[in-house]
Amino acid sequence: MSLYQAPLKDMQLLLQHALERTGVRDLPAFADFDDELIGAVLDEAGKFANGELAPLNSIGDTQGCRFEDGKVITPDGWKEAYQQFTESGWTGLALPEEFGGQSLPKFIAQPVNEMWLSANLGFIMFHALTQGCSEILLHFGSEEQKARYLEPMISGQWAVAMALTEPNAGSDLGSLTTKAIPQGDGRYLIKGQKIFITYGDHDLTENIIHFVLARTPDAPAGSRGISLFAVPKYRIEADGSVGESNDVACTGIEHKTGLHGSPTCSISYGDNDACYGELIGEENRGLMAMFILMNEARLSCGMQGVGFGEVGFQRALEYSQERTQGSDYRTGERTLIANHPDVVRMLLSIRSEVMGLRSLGYLIAAMIDKSEQCDAEESQALKARIALLTPVFKGCATERGNLMAGTTIQIFGGMGFVEETGVAQLMRDARANTIYEGTTGIQARDLVFRKVQLDKGAALTALLEDIDAVAARLAESESLATLAEQLSSASALMRAAIGQIIDKDNADLLQLNAGGVPFMDALGTLCCAWQLADIALTAEAKIAQGDDSDYHTNLVALTEFYFSYSVPNIEAGLKTFNQAHQGVGRYRFDL
Amino acid sequence: MSLYQAPLKDMQLLLQHALERTGVRDLPAFADFDDELIGAVLDEAGKFANGELAPLNSIGDTQGCRFEDGKVITPDGWKEAYQQFTESGWTGLALPEEFGGQSLPKFIAQPVNEMWLSANLGFIMFHALTQGCSEILLHFGSEEQKARYLEPMISGQWAVAMALTEPNAGSDLGSLTTKAIPQGDGRYLIKGQKIFITYGDHDLTENIIHFVLARTPDAPAGSRGISLFAVPKYRIEADGSVGESNDVACTGIEHKTGLHGSPTCSISYGDNDACYGELIGEENRGLMAMFILMNEARLSCGMQGVGFGEVGFQRALEYSQERTQGSDYRTGERTLIANHPDVVRMLLSIRSEVMGLRSLGYLIAAMIDKSEQCDAEESQALKARIALLTPVFKGCATERGNLMAGTTIQIFGGMGFVEETGVAQLMRDARANTIYEGTTGIQARDLVFRKVQLDKGAALTALLEDIDAVAARLAESESLATLAEQLSSASALMRAAIGQIIDKDNADLLQLNAGGVPFMDALGTLCCAWQLADIALTAEAKIAQGDDSDYHTNLVALTEFYFSYSVPNIEAGLKTFNQAHQGVGRYRFDL
Repeated sequence: MSLYQAPLKDMQLLLQHALERTGVRDLPAFADFDDELIGAVLDEAGKFANGELAPLNSIGDTQGCRFEDGKVITPDGWKEAYQQFTESGWTGLALPEEFGGQSLPKFIAQPVNEMWLSANLGFIMFHALTQGCSEILLHFGSEEQKARYLEPMISGQWAVAMALTEPNAGSDLGSLTTKAIPQGDGRYLIKGQKIFITYGDHDLTENIIHFVLARTPDAPAGSRGISLFAVPKYRIEADGSVGESNDVACTGIEHKTGLHGSPTCSISYGDNDACYGELIGEENRGLMAMFILMNEARLSCGMQGVGFGEVGFQRALEYSQERTQGSDYRTGERTLIANHPDVVRMLLSIRSEVMGLRSLGYLIAAMIDKSEQCDAEESQALKARIALLTPVFKGCATERGNLMAGTTIQIFGGMGFVEETGVAQLMRDARANTIYEGTTGIQARDLVFRKVQLDKGAALTALLEDIDAVAARLAESESLATLAEQLSSASALMRAAIGQIIDKDNADLLQLNAGGVPFMDALGTLCCAWQLADIALTAEAKIAQGDDSDYHTNLVALTEFYFSYSVPNIEAGLKTFNQAHQGVGRYRFDL
Repeated sequence: MSLYQAPLKDMQLLLQHALERTGVRDLPAFADFDDELIGAVLDEAGKFANGELAPLNSIGDTQGCRFEDGKVITPDGWKEAYQQFTESGWTGLALPEEFGGQSLPKFIAQPVNEMWLSANLGFIMFHALTQGCSEILLHFGSEEQKARYLEPMISGQWAVAMALTEPNAGSDLGSLTTKAIPQGDGRYLIKGQKIFITYGDHDLTENIIHFVLARTPDAPAGSRGISLFAVPKYRIEADGSVGESNDVACTGIEHKTGLHGSPTCSISYGDNDACYGELIGEENRGLMAMFILMNEARLSCGMQGVGFGEVGFQRALEYSQERTQGSDYRTGERTLIANHPDVVRMLLSIRSEVMGLRSLGYLIAAMIDKSEQCDAEESQALKARIALLTPVFKGCATERGNLMAGTTIQIFGGMGFVEETGVAQLMRDARANTIYEGTTGIQARDLVFRKVQLDKGAALTALLEDIDAVAARLAESESLATLAEQLSSASALMRAAIGQIIDKDNADLLQLNAGGVPFMDALGTLCCAWQLADIALTAEAKIAQGDDSDYHTNLVALTEFYFSYSVPNIEAGLKTFNQAHQGVGRYRFDL
């Protein structure tokens, strides 16, 4: 059974869609990234994902990481794969050439990342860290810091870790207590315990740079008193070589239900009062720096959800076309389970979510690229939309990634419950996805309060206008007109919900807090419907031109499926949002 | 952290509700089972579940069963717990006194079973087998067979196993190929391979009686040619003692993602042509016998879903009242996560499903008891309703059990992903629940075609009349009137859907097959809403009487929550059902 094949055709289609809708390649900065170049990069990445990373995925799950004598040992094959990955230049794909990267736009990096995430998430988690911490340095680092860290990070010589969480500071970073005491020579003495540090220790590189959130002695309480420090595992000599230990100790790794190949470490900084770090950016502005990385990480989490769905779909489709069971509902003859309408329903429920969410993920990446190069007015509008869609994408794609993993197991039947088929690993690996980088509830709060209420619904209203425009095009279409009314009435219901959020004086805080997740879920479904409808309209034109008609006919069918199967949930979700204060406020758990 | 506390108060409430609604204790056969007796049994069972079974649950998960030298070794503590369980008489709780049982009604056995399932499902899976196979013998066994098997089974001296599945015959039992060749002396030579046999081998008892489905030489093809045989692991001597090996060999156990404490065996019968069995009932009628057990097992699966939800709720509630994170949305002060409305939403989503589904499960048990003792006309109506509700309960409670396990992990945040908290085990253990004893898709097909279409919607229409009656009572209520319209309009939508199913000439087979699961899900939610509304009406009366007002006020709040949070999904599910043929039929996977 094949483990994973990068779905290059679907990826190309949705990438083209994102490029056309944003027009990002009309900007001079991106004019050189033509279809040929994109095709070549995706092809190469696909080969590496399919051939090198995917085969290691179940080894990582079965062996897991080990913690022995204070050191973390990664699974068999991890070291070789890391070397190949970094030597092939994948680490710096979207990072500046100046520091050894390849300066490709995010719209290319996004599908490439999706391949890594699908093929072997447990392995590749280090990559998003390097990407995100590099961007922090590019934004906030001094020239000296950039010179010191960026090249070895981007070449893969050094790895990085993000040390945020403490036992009493998870979702609520403002409560962290790790200390950073200035030494008067530019160095800070770091002291504290961190947990849940992904790739906090391992045997892949000669050094690991920890990006640690900590408090200076006079820092204000809460999240306004947090600073960011670069804390190497081994000290860095003046010539850039790796020196003695910096009093950074791994004290254990978590025994997790999934992602066994990714070491999740507890780290103790400064047990012997000999752990030194340097400040990145300004004091007390650490959380702002972290948010750059956090937004990047949230988009990556959303792509993980897409990636889990894609793998699940491929595995389930293949199994359904091999497994004979039951009889065909038309003929009564023994048949492949792929011919049972209920199995088709499950397969399409995964495929439609994957295509809708993937389209959204690629669109966001292209918007980020464009927002960094276009004029100020358009950039502001794009940034507002990116800010709006980030929690929706993170929240919905991760929740659905879990559901899709469950559906995959369901299609496998009893064999899905047996570890050897590998689909139970999907479920286990996916389970943290709705938790790390901000739980679903936190995404919903970010959406409702910061992304909708704060700008008085402007960004969401603008989005709904674009959705209405697609609905209008649907109405004029020959074969898709029946979907128009569904899309525009869902959009109208969403518009009505905005009113309840932005009227700050009358907004029911209990409702907004309790109903945030159903609201976000409804918006996520609406966004997928919008993307799929737009894709179906393009497909309809292709069919009329006789261009790859079978493939495009399937895209139309997929969109019709989504409208019949998922779009009705928008109204239900918004009804729930409207009534969300009922029962929640009256129930008393203390009885 | 407490592992499980049998929720006796909730159980008593819902059991009383079921007793009142069915009036089962008005029948002379059940008049003796007064509240005092019920209370005493539930108390004792609670002590055993909390004190003996729950503490073994994580040991079973961590150690798992081992397969060594052709033998299955159960986890530490399994043997002692088995001995205590059987010696305390729990095995035969609802089986005839004549054979060593206690002849208690199912309405008492149901909450007792729920406790076992919540406390340690991996351990207790043998129990449903003994219960179900005993009923098969009581229905179909000869007097000699009853005498031979029932007492040692009910005393726990012998265990039983159900050998149905073969590599190519899972959901589709009609395809099985295990042979049974009559020997002319009443014995049959059994030869074949079976897989996924729960407790197919173990070290708990001196003998294991396998109930094996097989084909005689001249049997017709398909499911009408299947016979049932009792095949002991060790032959039984004329005096009832255990003799030599009966050529029944365990060839391995599955490496499952959950339920590690329950050995899932591959069994080879007759490798040396020396495996003998005896026919139970008539030749070629084996599937009919199995369906008795299957219906029982499906109700047990539904209770497992309730059981997972209950444990998850208890664990998540406790954690939410210990874990401080984030700030109160009203005061801005650091707070327990139990005070975040989104966490309350998650807790109540579990609790409301548990209470609604549990009520349904207890009601079905009381209906079964009544149907066996009341007059023929009422019995027929009850049996039709039980038949209707069985797939709904199995299908919905198991799917929701999985969702509730996921929600529990979500409330635990990062700690939920770490195995030590035990909630990841819930997710893993629950995952087979939607698959074994008939997948969710099979439940939906049973519901749509056999339980609705075949009787022209009579049983479902009768159910909707009862639901409408509750809606009418809601409308007259002072505080619950706002829920009446929601319930009656959901009922009306369901009634409209019946039309599409029963009009056999015009029914769209593709729609009914592809939309069965959304239809069933909508009906499941409607049934829970019905139960919760009825419970809230009773609670309202209690509040008016000043009887335990706080508890009953919470029940009203819980019902309001369910109506705001879950009831909107009924309309969405039925819309999906109405449009279910769209997209499913047009999409082609073979491109």
